[in-house]
Formats: sequence, structure tokens, C-alpha cells
Amino acid sequence: MPAYKAPLRDMRFLIDHVFDFPAHYAALGATEASPDMVSAILEEGARFCENVLAPLNRPGDEEGCHFDNGVVTTPKGFKEAFAQYVGGGWHGLAADPAYGGQGLPSSLGLVLSEMIGSSNTSWGMYPGLTHGAMSAIHAHGTAEQKDTYLSKLTAGQWTGTMCLTEAHCGTDLGIIKTRAVPQANGSYAVTGSKIFISAGEHDMSENIIHLVLAKLPDAPAGTKGISLFIVPKFLADSGARNGVSCGSIEHKMGIKASATCVLNFDGAEGYLIGEANKGLNCMFTMMNHARLGTGMQGLCLGEASFQGAIKYANDRLQMRALTGAKAPEKPADPIIVHPDVRRMLLTMKAFNEGNRALTYFTAQLLDTAHLSDDPQQRQQAEDLLAFLTPICKAFMTETGLEVTNHGMQVFGGHGFIREWGMEQLVRDCRIAPIYEGTNGIQALDLLGRKVLGSQGKLLRGFTKIVHKFCAANAEHPQLKAQVAQLNELNQQWGELTTKVGMAAMKNPDEVGAAALDYLMYSGYIIHAYLWLRMALVAQAQLDAGQGDADYARGKLATCEFYFKRLLPRTSAHRAAVEAGSDCLMSLPAEMFAL
Amino acid sequence: MPAYKAPLRDMRFLIDHVFDFPAHYAALGATEASPDMVSAILEEGARFCENVLAPLNRPGDEEGCHFDNGVVTTPKGFKEAFAQYVGGGWHGLAADPAYGGQGLPSSLGLVLSEMIGSSNTSWGMYPGLTHGAMSAIHAHGTAEQKDTYLSKLTAGQWTGTMCLTEAHCGTDLGIIKTRAVPQANGSYAVTGSKIFISAGEHDMSENIIHLVLAKLPDAPAGTKGISLFIVPKFLADSGARNGVSCGSIEHKMGIKASATCVLNFDGAEGYLIGEANKGLNCMFTMMNHARLGTGMQGLCLGEASFQGAIKYANDRLQMRALTGAKAPEKPADPIIVHPDVRRMLLTMKAFNEGNRALTYFTAQLLDTAHLSDDPQQRQQAEDLLAFLTPICKAFMTETGLEVTNHGMQVFGGHGFIREWGMEQLVRDCRIAPIYEGTNGIQALDLLGRKVLGSQGKLLRGFTKIVHKFCAANAEHPQLKAQVAQLNELNQQWGELTTKVGMAAMKNPDEVGAAALDYLMYSGYIIHAYLWLRMALVAQAQLDAGQGDADYARGKLATCEFYFKRLLPRTSAHRAAVEAGSDCLMSLPAEMFAL
Repeated sequence: MPAYKAPLRDMRFLIDHVFDFPAHYAALGATEASPDMVSAILEEGARFCENVLAPLNRPGDEEGCHFDNGVVTTPKGFKEAFAQYVGGGWHGLAADPAYGGQGLPSSLGLVLSEMIGSSNTSWGMYPGLTHGAMSAIHAHGTAEQKDTYLSKLTAGQWTGTMCLTEAHCGTDLGIIKTRAVPQANGSYAVTGSKIFISAGEHDMSENIIHLVLAKLPDAPAGTKGISLFIVPKFLADSGARNGVSCGSIEHKMGIKASATCVLNFDGAEGYLIGEANKGLNCMFTMMNHARLGTGMQGLCLGEASFQGAIKYANDRLQMRALTGAKAPEKPADPIIVHPDVRRMLLTMKAFNEGNRALTYFTAQLLDTAHLSDDPQQRQQAEDLLAFLTPICKAFMTETGLEVTNHGMQVFGGHGFIREWGMEQLVRDCRIAPIYEGTNGIQALDLLGRKVLGSQGKLLRGFTKIVHKFCAANAEHPQLKAQVAQLNELNQQWGELTTKVGMAAMKNPDEVGAAALDYLMYSGYIIHAYLWLRMALVAQAQLDAGQGDADYARGKLATCEFYFKRLLPRTSAHRAAVEAGSDCLMSLPAEMFAL
Repeated sequence: MPAYKAPLRDMRFLIDHVFDFPAHYAALGATEASPDMVSAILEEGARFCENVLAPLNRPGDEEGCHFDNGVVTTPKGFKEAFAQYVGGGWHGLAADPAYGGQGLPSSLGLVLSEMIGSSNTSWGMYPGLTHGAMSAIHAHGTAEQKDTYLSKLTAGQWTGTMCLTEAHCGTDLGIIKTRAVPQANGSYAVTGSKIFISAGEHDMSENIIHLVLAKLPDAPAGTKGISLFIVPKFLADSGARNGVSCGSIEHKMGIKASATCVLNFDGAEGYLIGEANKGLNCMFTMMNHARLGTGMQGLCLGEASFQGAIKYANDRLQMRALTGAKAPEKPADPIIVHPDVRRMLLTMKAFNEGNRALTYFTAQLLDTAHLSDDPQQRQQAEDLLAFLTPICKAFMTETGLEVTNHGMQVFGGHGFIREWGMEQLVRDCRIAPIYEGTNGIQALDLLGRKVLGSQGKLLRGFTKIVHKFCAANAEHPQLKAQVAQLNELNQQWGELTTKVGMAAMKNPDEVGAAALDYLMYSGYIIHAYLWLRMALVAQAQLDAGQGDADYARGKLATCEFYFKRLLPRTSAHRAAVEAGSDCLMSLPAEMFAL
């Protein structure tokens, strides 16, 4: 495993310059997020992730989780690292101070999340799921429920889960079979079996609070008949063991140190949270955050892979440069001299830094949606979030998977060998395009629900920003060509959307046929916008003789690379969108047979 | 693991119609490859692969190989399957009858190879490597060497390996350190350590014959000082154990049932094969075959993945079709109704069937190069092979990896779980873009050595075929639009090549910068040509009311899909080729640092 170093220089470039976090926090009145606090979090967070979490990553993959008669043991060191994490106050960083949190903005929590995910994605699942459960209880719980659960969850004394999937349904939650029957004492008896429950059972906390989707006896069919329940492993009042048990854990391709559990609920005592039959809505309120978190796994693992790949490309000696020996004193040149190795490294760098910028851009919107006093500003942030969330989830995980595969390829045969750690990053990343709503589902959400469902309004909310940006920078001495390229794509984006929308009015299959390529097309344009924002700042720093000139030149070169070699992929995606649904649907299902 | 069924219908379509194997064999005088013989091989081969090899695939992955003090044990059943395979005469199918082989054309061996690779890629490595060793000895060994080794290798009593890579060099064989010192008896004492040796040690055969690259004491530096040696595990005459031992086996991402060995040669007795210092040339003579074999792993694993995915997509019920319920009697529709699932399935089908066509097209060239009496025809076949081989290796493995990833995605969360078998196909496939020369190296071979190195002659050898094909079918009633599209791309291909060639004359880095995208661009055009060849036959069958109409319509629909949704990727690759090397090379290596 390559040693992980938090990419603080790139983080600071975005925080201090591109997205001006100090001004952003000041505008939202988030005074506790002072520049000193931000620096402390970056530096101390980096230290914790580099020194505590990263060394546990490879061993955790090799050891995996253990299951023995309902008891799950996490890999060696995981429990201790969790204790250190909660002891350091990291768990409550962005949590409500009313329950012991530090009340810092979500965006800072995400900055920390990136470092955690890069150093140990599996480990990060345990606090990650707990944060999800905390948000749900915070948003929908009664005062009593909050008092009962939130302090202990914030303190990390207890952890949480989200129990949605059943063996016969993942995407299609309308057909879940888990039942909740009202009891005399106001609680519910929850019975059913859930699968793929991350952190469903483990040894890192005293208690586990499950948030469970189930149906009431009289519930309407489909998604409108799903309710959400709190089902603790141990009852909060009596401490008695509840009727929920772990039946087994899955053997997976990756994130092996994250326990993925089958949970059997056998008349377990549960408490309704939020309104009856509105359980899915309760879940959806935290989807933006969870989906951004999943998208970030693409960034996190991509960053870890990039760090391994640049080190290896500088160390590994193999062949001579096509233009003549670059290290004649050595038996061969380091492979970073070869253009094709650079193509892979730059692709990794461009996607990672673009994804980090997208994360920070979106994280600021989360802050605004939570903290702004201005309802219009909040609404605008919500709209942009609704639009960007499926793109973050799917585009960042697709590109993350590409990045980790490049990183492995840079290592040649050694990339395939477990001890080098590069293949683990591919395996760990491979789940991200699948869970938290497959990327196909994200694409439908984007094109069907968000873009066409708003008659294009949510798209225009973003293209207007790009349009203004392009207008303001149309004459930029060094970057005007790229600004013009972005401007043209931005216009084309709207036209393409109109075309799909017209076709979809006649045939709803057109939405599904176009969706994934439309999402990828959109992602490339958004990255282009973010790359130009970064390039503008880098160029300004160079012009002013400020900052680290080498770093700024690296940004500009990567921006140029992105525009020349990655952005043209939009043309292939556009063609696929325009191809329509006939060439997908004309073949009867039977004809797929061998 | 989805049950494997050999895709005999598609194979027969290519063999009997598109590539007319009977006429091809007749023209080469390969009378032993009669239609009856071909049918027997297809049917019996399918039976063996489906019933014997496929059931060992998942358990083999879980169990892996065992290493104990130099002894390697393959997974349960592997040894017995090998005995059955050699007992059935499969091992010598395409081997020289002078040494007990059946002397059938290479193309038939490859047809069998596909079935083996789809049912159990790891297992297939053992006979696969042996075939490589046999070719080398056949092509370069003395009569005595052939007599000593070939019969037993053909009979599968012994197996073989290829020992090239060392810890510090894979691509760059010029810097190998293994030494061979001449001995008084005419043999050589071989000393050094080789890594990544597939089938380097195992329990499936009595003896293992290693083909080892090493340097003579007075050898010139670099690749011109490498010689090839036969180093048996047990000496052929005395049966004494030779000084070669397995130091360990690798823990890998995939192909876990294939033993990947560190081999330590400690003054082992070896025999020079071929001329001194010409070892690399000896290896290269079998590269075409080995690289095609590796390329086929993309097809094989892609086919296995497709079979799993179509079954699952027809069985799994989830959500309703966007156009209204298709299976109203069930709780949800099978997911094959969803356009995005079809996009994945059709992408898989299009790449697999295109790759199979490419394999058969290339396999016929191999036959012609080996068997034709006409030197001009042989040369033409050799030229086309030289051109197509790196494309087969790289394009088929890149697309194979994409295909296996789609197959896994179709399964949603279940795709990530080992017991379903879909993720194993991704892991097993992931090595194929790396070994047998990374795809980056293939791309350099294609663009630098083959295309530009021949002043475009090798490319023109292929584009002429396409040009003639397009001219002959320009007025085809149903397919003329696609023919025109192919014709335009075929012209553009030449122009793009000229452009890169001009740039490369000024700066050799232009070759490396363009190579991978140039290769992918070429692969898409070649697939387009092959898809049209298949579509023409399918359309003719439909018009004539011959053959299986559903199947023919499936071919035509998949061809349309390919042209509309996959072929446009050429535009992105072309743009990347045209981007040139500056945007790759301008960034100093230090600036990649964090």
C-alpha cells in the first residue's frame, strides 16, 4: 500500500482561493469555522488519517470481518481506531451541539471524510453510516427520540445503520416485505429480513441503532406504504437485547473490512420515526448527503491510487524515453518519462482534482441549504443540490473506477499483486457505482425526475452559472479558447436536453435510453467549468507572482490536458443520447438468448 | 456462477457463413478439418468445458493455489480435469502429428480455447502456457530437442512455461540479470530469479519444461544479448531434479487458481534453444499466437459475464417498465425491460460478438500464414497478423474489462458478492490488459513499430480490405448508411495516421502520446467492419428465409446498436490522438508531486 499523504496543498487551494471558504462561512454566520479551526481540522485530520487509519487498510482487507454465531468482529485495530476517532472529537465534528456535536458546517465534515475515505474506505463506512442515522433522527425524530439516541450516537458510544434492501428488492423498495405491527405500548413489532446492511453488526460500539424501512399492516401498496422505524440492538431504557440478529456477513469483492450484514428482525421492538407511510420521504431527506458521500468514494480511492501511481512512476525504471535517455546514469529511465504513462497519470490527476472541486462546490451548497437565513438562497442551493447530487454520485464513481484502474495499470504486473495495494483500491471502488442507488438509477433521477421533471428549470439553474462565468471570462488572455469551448458545450447541453425532452413526451423509454450517457455528458461539462475556475485562479496567482508557481503551472497544464483529451468524450456521449431508444428496445427479450 | 453454455449458434454462424471455414480449410488443403470434425470439436469441446471445467471455476477461485515449501498444489479437481483433457486428446488438437498431435489448424484450437477460457480462465492457463512452450521448441529446437520434449508436452505428460520477467524488469527485458554459463558438457548453468511465471510449479504433470531468457557471459548489452534456454524441472535423461525451485506464489486480484510463481534458478542445467543472443526473436515468433490468446481472455470472460447477465436480467424482478407494466401478473417487471439495462446488455453483446468475429478473422490469417503454399498469400497474412495482433490483445481486453464490469453492474448489489460469480470475471479479466505486454506496449507496437514503421503499409493492407468491402456494398438496400459511415471512418483513419506520422517525425513522443487512443480508435473501426460483415450475412439469410430469423434479427439490431452507440467513441479517441504530446509532456515530473 502506498503511504497516504493528505493532499493539503490542493485542498487549501480550493478552500482558500477557488471557493473562498472564509467568505462563505462568514456569509452564513458560521463563525465557529474560523480559518484557524479549518487549519486545525486539516492538519490534525491528516495526521489521524495518515498515521492511524491508513496503516490499517491493507491488513483490514486481508483479514476481513469475522462472523461467528451472530457475532461480528472487525479486523485488528479497527475498534481501537474508532475509539481514538471518537475520543478526538472527530465523530461529532458537524453534529448538533445540542447533542454534544461541534456544530461545524457540513462542508468541513466532508473535507475530513475525503481524508478518511482515502486512507481507509472500509473503516470509514462505520462512522459514515452512523452519520446517516443521526441525520434521519435529527430531521424526523421526536424530541424524546433525539434525546434518547443522538447524544450517544454523536459520542460514538453507539453507532447506526440504514436498513432498506431485502433479498428480492434493492431499487424497488415498494415491494419490501418487512412488517411492523403496532403493540399495546405504542411500539411496533418489526419482522423481516434485510440484506446488505453495512455496519449492521460489529464490535466497535456498545449498541447499534438500526433505521428500518417496514410496512404497517394497513399500509397502501408500493412506496407510499413504507414507514421508518428505529430498532435498537439493545433497548435504550432496559438495555435488554432486542429481537434483531445478524444471520451472516457477505463475502465481497472489496470493502472487505466493512461488515455487510444480513439482519433478521424477529418481532423486534421498533419505534416509528416520522409519519406513518412517509418512511421513504424521511430517507430521501438525507439522500443528498449520503449520495455525495458515496460519490466521494470515487475521489477518495482515486486519490489514494494516484499517490501510489506517481510514486511508482518516479521510482520504477523501465525502458528509455523515446526522445533519448533521461536518466543515463541509471539502467533505465523512470517510467514517468513515457507519454502513455503520463496519459494515465494526468487522467487520474484531472479526474481527482475535478472531483474534489465538485465535492467542495456541492459541499458549499449543502452549507447554504442548511445554514442560510435567506429562504430564496436556501431554495436556490436546494435546487442546485437536487441537480448535482446524482451527478456527484455517478460521475465521481465512474471516473473514480477509471482512475483506480489506471493506477493499477501504471504498476504493470505488480498492480495485480495484492501486496502492492493498488488492486484493492479498484475492488473497494467497484461497489461505489452500485450502492446508494446504482448509477443507472442516478441517471434516471437526473434526467427524468430532476431535469425533465422540472421542465429544465434545475438544469438552467446550473447552465446560467456557467453562462455568466463564460461571459465574464470570454476575453481572458490565456484561457479564452477553453472558455469558448465550455460556452459552446453549455449551449449544446440545453439543446440536447430539449431534444430528449421532446422525444420523451412521445415515448417514456427515451428517458431511460438516454439517461446514463446524458449524466456522463453533463459530468464532463461540469468538470470543465470547475477546471476553468481553478485555472483562472492559478493563472491569476502566476500573474501576480503569488503562491507556489510550480503548483499553479501544474493546474494549468492539467486543465489543458482535460480540455484536449478528456472533454472530447462528450461527443461520444452526445451521440449515444441522440441515438434514441429504438436501437435498445427493438430486440425482443427472448432474442438475447444464446 | 452462471452455468456456461458454449455459444455454438454464434460460433457456427461465423464458421459456416461469415468466414466460411469449410472453403478456407479446403483452400489450404487442411482436409483433416472436415465439417464433421469441426462439429465434433464444437460439440464435444462444449460438453467438456460446460461439464468439467466450468464447475471448477468458482471453487478454484475460492480455494486458490497452495504453496508449501516449494510444492504447489492446484485447487481440488484441477489435476483430474487436466488428465481428462489430455486423455480426450484435446491438448494435441493443433499440435504436430510427428509428435502425437492431431495436426488440426490453429483456428480450431482457438475455437476450443474460447470455450476453455469462458468456463475456467485460470485452468486454461496451464495448457495455454504449455502450448506456448511447444511452439517455441517446435520453431527453434534442434531435432533432438524436439524429440526429447515435444511428444511428452503434446501428450500433457509434461507441461511448459515461459520465463521472461524478473523483479526489476517486465517490459524492459534488455536489463534481465539471469545468467547462463557454458558447461563442459555443452549445457549451461542457469542462475537467476524469475517472477510472474504462470504454471511455474504445480501438481498437474510429471515434469515442467521451462523456457528461460538469460544472458551468456559475453552477451552484448540490451535486448540483443538475450538467449533462450530449455530448463526442465527434472532432467529428461536421468530424471534427476534440476536446480530450479519455486520460491513462492503470488497473492493476486484474480486468476487465483493459476499458480503465478517465483522461480529460482540456481545453476540449473539448461540447453540453448535457437541461436545465442537471439532469444528474444525466438520468443517473438510465438507472440502473435500468445497475444491473440490473451486478447481472447477479454472475449472469454466477457461471454461468461454476458451469459450471467442475460439470465439475471430475465429473472430479476424490479420496478415497472417506463412504458407500463410488462409482467403485470408479477410483483415487478424483469429488469430486461429497462432501457439502461439493455444498454449494458447490448454493449456486452456487441463487444463479445465483435471480438469473436475478430478472433476468427485473425485465426484464419494464422492458418494461412502457417499452411498456405503461396508465399505471397503467406506474406499478406503475416502482414495483416502483425497489424492486427496488438489490436486483438489490447482492444479485446479493454472491451472485455468493460463488458465484465457491465455484467456485474446488471446484478446490482449482488454483483459485488462473491457467490454470484460475476465479480470474479472482472478480477480474472483485469490481468489481461496488463500481461503479455501491457496495452500501452501493444499500442506502441501498433503505431510505432507496425504502422509508422512500415510507412503505413501494414495499415493500408487492412484499410484496402475495408475500402473494397465498402465499395462492393455501397448500395446495399438496408445497410448502405452504415457502409457509408464505415467508409468515411476508414478514410479518416488513413488521414489521422498521416497526421500523427508527420508529427512523429519532428518529435518521437508524439507516437507514445497518441498510441493508446490510436489503437482504440482502430479497434472500433475494425469492429464496425466485422459487424457489417455479420449484418450482411444476417440480412441475406432473412431475405432468403434461411436460418434462424430471430437470431438474424438480433444480429442486425446489435449491429445498429453498435453503429449508433459505440462507434461514435471514435470521435473522442480521434480528438485525443490529435491533441498531441505537449499537453502530456509539458508538466515536469516533479510537478506531479502532491
